[in-house]
Amino acid sequence: MFMDYVDLKYRPNRDEIIAEFRMDPNGVTFEKACSEIAAESSIGTWTKVSTMNPSIARKLKPHVFWINNKERTFKIAYPIGLFEYGNIPQLMSSIGGNIFGMKMLKSLRLEDIDFPESYIRGFRGPEFGIEGIRKRLKIWGRPLLGTIIKPKVGLTPRQMAKIAYDVASGGLDFVKDDENLTSMKYCRFEDRVPLILEALDKAEEETGRRIGYSPNITAPADVMEERAYYARKHGSKYIMVDVVTAGWSGLQYIRNLNMGMIIHAHRAGHAAFTKSPEHGISMLTIAKLCRLIGVDQIHVGTAHVGKMVGSIDETCEIEDEIEQKFITEKSGEHVLEQFWYKIRPTISVASGGLHPGGIPKLVERMGSNIVMQFGGGCHGHPGGSRKGAMAIRQAMEAVRDGITLQEKAKQHKELKQAIDKWGVA
Amino acid sequence: MFMDYVDLKYRPNRDEIIAEFRMDPNGVTFEKACSEIAAESSIGTWTKVSTMNPSIARKLKPHVFWINNKERTFKIAYPIGLFEYGNIPQLMSSIGGNIFGMKMLKSLRLEDIDFPESYIRGFRGPEFGIEGIRKRLKIWGRPLLGTIIKPKVGLTPRQMAKIAYDVASGGLDFVKDDENLTSMKYCRFEDRVPLILEALDKAEEETGRRIGYSPNITAPADVMEERAYYARKHGSKYIMVDVVTAGWSGLQYIRNLNMGMIIHAHRAGHAAFTKSPEHGISMLTIAKLCRLIGVDQIHVGTAHVGKMVGSIDETCEIEDEIEQKFITEKSGEHVLEQFWYKIRPTISVASGGLHPGGIPKLVERMGSNIVMQFGGGCHGHPGGSRKGAMAIRQAMEAVRDGITLQEKAKQHKELKQAIDKWGVA
Repeated sequence: MFMDYVDLKYRPNRDEIIAEFRMDPNGVTFEKACSEIAAESSIGTWTKVSTMNPSIARKLKPHVFWINNKERTFKIAYPIGLFEYGNIPQLMSSIGGNIFGMKMLKSLRLEDIDFPESYIRGFRGPEFGIEGIRKRLKIWGRPLLGTIIKPKVGLTPRQMAKIAYDVASGGLDFVKDDENLTSMKYCRFEDRVPLILEALDKAEEETGRRIGYSPNITAPADVMEERAYYARKHGSKYIMVDVVTAGWSGLQYIRNLNMGMIIHAHRAGHAAFTKSPEHGISMLTIAKLCRLIGVDQIHVGTAHVGKMVGSIDETCEIEDEIEQKFITEKSGEHVLEQFWYKIRPTISVASGGLHPGGIPKLVERMGSNIVMQFGGGCHGHPGGSRKGAMAIRQAMEAVRDGITLQEKAKQHKELKQAIDKWGVA
Repeated sequence: MFMDYVDLKYRPNRDEIIAEFRMDPNGVTFEKACSEIAAESSIGTWTKVSTMNPSIARKLKPHVFWINNKERTFKIAYPIGLFEYGNIPQLMSSIGGNIFGMKMLKSLRLEDIDFPESYIRGFRGPEFGIEGIRKRLKIWGRPLLGTIIKPKVGLTPRQMAKIAYDVASGGLDFVKDDENLTSMKYCRFEDRVPLILEALDKAEEETGRRIGYSPNITAPADVMEERAYYARKHGSKYIMVDVVTAGWSGLQYIRNLNMGMIIHAHRAGHAAFTKSPEHGISMLTIAKLCRLIGVDQIHVGTAHVGKMVGSIDETCEIEDEIEQKFITEKSGEHVLEQFWYKIRPTISVASGGLHPGGIPKLVERMGSNIVMQFGGGCHGHPGGSRKGAMAIRQAMEAVRDGITLQEKAKQHKELKQAIDKWGVA
């Protein structure tokens, strides 16, 4: 029973997981490669085995039901019985696993996955979602403005707390650690968290605004748990996880603790497998998995405004995917249909090389239901971090009031200094 | 203080982490791109920030100290203070993180990392290592012979137990689950593990040999822990983790439980970022991190004998790296020096498309200090799984006795049937 998995007449049923791939075969026909990918990612292997039986094939055989030869894309419908509910590593070991290493392929990219309701029910999704985050910070109708404290590492807890206070009193809503700062000798997690929270409490009292701090708990899972509870004990409402380098097993563990904390997801490392349009896994897929598991906010790119990769189209597709309840298929763009049922939306974080001069273009491209984060574009301000925060706030007000940054800068010297240094995107 | 991180006169000190990269810049000079990569992976960002101070730069600034323009490779020495001991996600968020997504790079590949003693001390390494595994199975001087029960998923626990018994009595040393089998309705982890262990106990009694079973615990970290303890309670000496799809945080958590079980690492998903020679992270790096954390056995490829990618050179370099105590630098092959101190060796697992006819070539290329695993190449035997196991054992004996498979097949019809079906590699 050596099977052909290609059947272009097959119509997927409502309980199947659909995956779209892009592929370049190596010495075999496109159809043959599609069939072998379907086999390797489910019940098959490279040769006929005596232990296979018709009942397994009937229940669990996937179907390659759609091929676009010109685009070199195809779709596979996988029976739900191939997967364990609530287990993302298992999902990825199946449809994002061995297949990337098959000799008969030059390249393979997992573009998107469409999940049926039954699979989605196995996950919690975000505990807060966009509404919950906005409620907590009491901010509606505009982007949330945050900073990553810089330099990435090297500051003492006291120095960080001072900077946190400066940017908060300068007007930002949100302060976070950088992706490579966890707990170092000169800046232990346990020392930093209470000091920064205290500094922000002071700023909250003085300004009457609410300000969040997201400490980076990225570590082995047990250490992440300890750090999350420690942060909560000291009054933090947020935790941050580097979701790619920590991995799905640790991220799901933390989410499933259901701790009543907003989870901020940094995506450091994603581009090792998302960057090539020909090979690897799309950032869209990663972002969907993060929403499913339940991160409340995630870095999705800057729609080509900042220093990192990610086109306008790609960033906006990801933003839609994690924000909307129903996604319609966009065939040219490898976006599959998705109904999110009771899963709350995740807010998109734009971060990486942003400065005040980029804000109008960013809002034009991504709308105002996002978090904007400024690292160098805040602390690199000629007047220091507080002035940097003020300039960011001023640029935001200009967009709100429908005037140009240049216009606004006439009355606001912090913004003027920022656009003199970095320009307007 | 906008810094240049390139200093080709710099000599790394003994307490620095050295990383070798391969890179293709996008619109900037090679040197400029090297410098920006060093910055982004440590203390810098895209613009000068007011919060940087000379003491941070002095203590934590990395140096690009070696550039090979022809090969497009370079090395960076990172001060140890940039890293948290015992935290692999943090390491990867630093030197395997944002840098892959920088717009100024066409591609970037992390080739290797050389760890100093101080960093290595933060990890346990394998609890058993090669000696410990061999002692447990009482097998010396030859490769360990294992099978993955096939089909990958779909069998009931009873069917799996029957196959396990068949291959064990046929002569194999080791039985494992496939990478996408965790706990499904028709094959729950809790049902499968006791039944398979019982079947192997019976085979052990009948044959007088020891036979291992490695159940796949891959899941959210808390579920992995439950499953690992469950397997141990029922007498299993092994657990298996899909290390790439589970991720570093979950893997470290499981290893740090120090449960007295041999950890088998499957690498499903690695090729999404290891396959391109130009971009991503090398499998050598992944294997080193796994040894450091402490997996006892890991899939490293089949030296081009099987169905998966991985050249002879690459597979053998990885095997050396995880098996030897001291690795000398091989500059043409992107292998850095590494002294492993007290970290035990990890055994290399060759798996993916192997059959009896490949055994001589595999031993010739990889030596006998390996685990060989056969899936289709066992259960695809015309006589079934037990005959498949016998054929594998016979091929192994032929190699031990220095005769050809064809010669051996004259007296052993199981081997003859196997090489009639699949040939000799």
